[in-house]
Amino acid sequence: MEVTRVPVGPEGIVDPGDIRRALRPSTVLISVMHANNELGTVQPIAEIAGIAHEAGAVSHSDGVQALGKIPVDVEALGVDLYSITGHKVYAPKGEGALFVRKGTAIGSIQFGGHHERDRRPGTENVPGAVAFGAAAAWLIENGQAEAARLQGLRDRMEAAILGRVPGASVNGGGAPRTPNTSSICFDGIRGEALVIALDLRGFAVSSGAACSSGAVEPSHVLTAIGLSADRARGTIRFSLGRLNTAEQVDALVEALVEAVGQLRRIAPAERAHA
Amino acid sequence: MEVTRVPVGPEGIVDPGDIRRALRPSTVLISVMHANNELGTVQPIAEIAGIAHEAGAVSHSDGVQALGKIPVDVEALGVDLYSITGHKVYAPKGEGALFVRKGTAIGSIQFGGHHERDRRPGTENVPGAVAFGAAAAWLIENGQAEAARLQGLRDRMEAAILGRVPGASVNGGGAPRTPNTSSICFDGIRGEALVIALDLRGFAVSSGAACSSGAVEPSHVLTAIGLSADRARGTIRFSLGRLNTAEQVDALVEALVEAVGQLRRIAPAERAHA
Repeated sequence: MEVTRVPVGPEGIVDPGDIRRALRPSTVLISVMHANNELGTVQPIAEIAGIAHEAGAVSHSDGVQALGKIPVDVEALGVDLYSITGHKVYAPKGEGALFVRKGTAIGSIQFGGHHERDRRPGTENVPGAVAFGAAAAWLIENGQAEAARLQGLRDRMEAAILGRVPGASVNGGGAPRTPNTSSICFDGIRGEALVIALDLRGFAVSSGAACSSGAVEPSHVLTAIGLSADRARGTIRFSLGRLNTAEQVDALVEALVEAVGQLRRIAPAERAHA
Repeated sequence: MEVTRVPVGPEGIVDPGDIRRALRPSTVLISVMHANNELGTVQPIAEIAGIAHEAGAVSHSDGVQALGKIPVDVEALGVDLYSITGHKVYAPKGEGALFVRKGTAIGSIQFGGHHERDRRPGTENVPGAVAFGAAAAWLIENGQAEAARLQGLRDRMEAAILGRVPGASVNGGGAPRTPNTSSICFDGIRGEALVIALDLRGFAVSSGAACSSGAVEPSHVLTAIGLSADRARGTIRFSLGRLNTAEQVDALVEALVEAVGQLRRIAPAERAHA
């Protein structure tokens, strides 16, 4: 298989025109994630699916980070394939689902038993599937209200951080974003040091994606939007969820103001070394 | 890849001599399941692993049906690769493990994230792994006593069935077997009808493997040991577990005597049609 990687703009959004220009006669699949895991930026999937179909290609989107955060309607998106997972919507880890539009021919990549119509061998995780269904039912009922609540918290958090921490900026802040994710760059700070400082104060934030934890390279997502290695390493991802409250957000901001100030005082050399 | 399938004898056991004779200069892997899922028969894995190593091949065994039923010691077995799963030892569904002997080179079959040292992308099911560990710790402490208890129940069940149901015989009964599994053929009976009759009386038994449920073909395991299609279709698998008691076994035998008698009376034509 030959793969063409299409770039993203400075706000982390794929330009559908770039996808159109990247098409080749042999293109069979166009796959673009719905929401980015580090930035929360939301891609123009419906437009991209339209381009795929004009070109006779199948359109796939990874919706793992979108489900539960923004409305997901495979009809409106027009995608042929759409991936989701239970553990991102408070079902247990261990189960996922792939939406397959009727008529989309998919093959298997694992072989052995005849489970799931020969598509994926192995004893089905029935309790996991039931839990995922229950979580989805909860989302249908409450997802929109919860998204609005999260966006309120996120906006409150960003406004406070940008107002009180000098040299802070939101990555992808100008793009459509999921309501719960915020990627913030702090000038002259090493993300790992800030993660540890916040952890000691009781707050769990992330300096990258779990998919590449242990990596010393700066995040490929952040370099893709044009951040320098320094700025990428100075970026922290804040993710808000069902159990978070405005009080916690306010306490986080206090801890952050303190931690960033301290790190800049005690380790100003970081700036030069980074 | 070219695959040679080695047959089994009438008791469901692979003859290591057959494996030796099937070796080719290009043989890279010999894979034999440790215990069979339908018969409970236990294969001579240590001997087979020795043959593999003499030939410079890697030896793999699927121990999914063995773990928790018979002692599993990868050093004694000598295997390079050994597969197990949590849900067969009372951990939740959704997690498994592959023992990989140091120095055994394995590649990946799925790609994407860098989880599990690039071997299997995807968010790890941490609670599942912890539960599997807890189940394994329980087994180390209690596995041997529980196996002896199950074997007592299984022997009691088989003796009663063979003594009271005419035309019943144990498949693989002469081979080493796991202590909890019994595959019994009832002459002139359709297994599906007996499964339903027992289900109505409150007993869950199986007429095949879950891996091929929905299949109308007779079990490939039973035809491999030389059973006719009729006899394969007349076979029921009984599996005993932690929660089963002697009282339940005795009640099952009563229900079985009644159901088999009834089926033979009301549907004698089955015999001709089967």
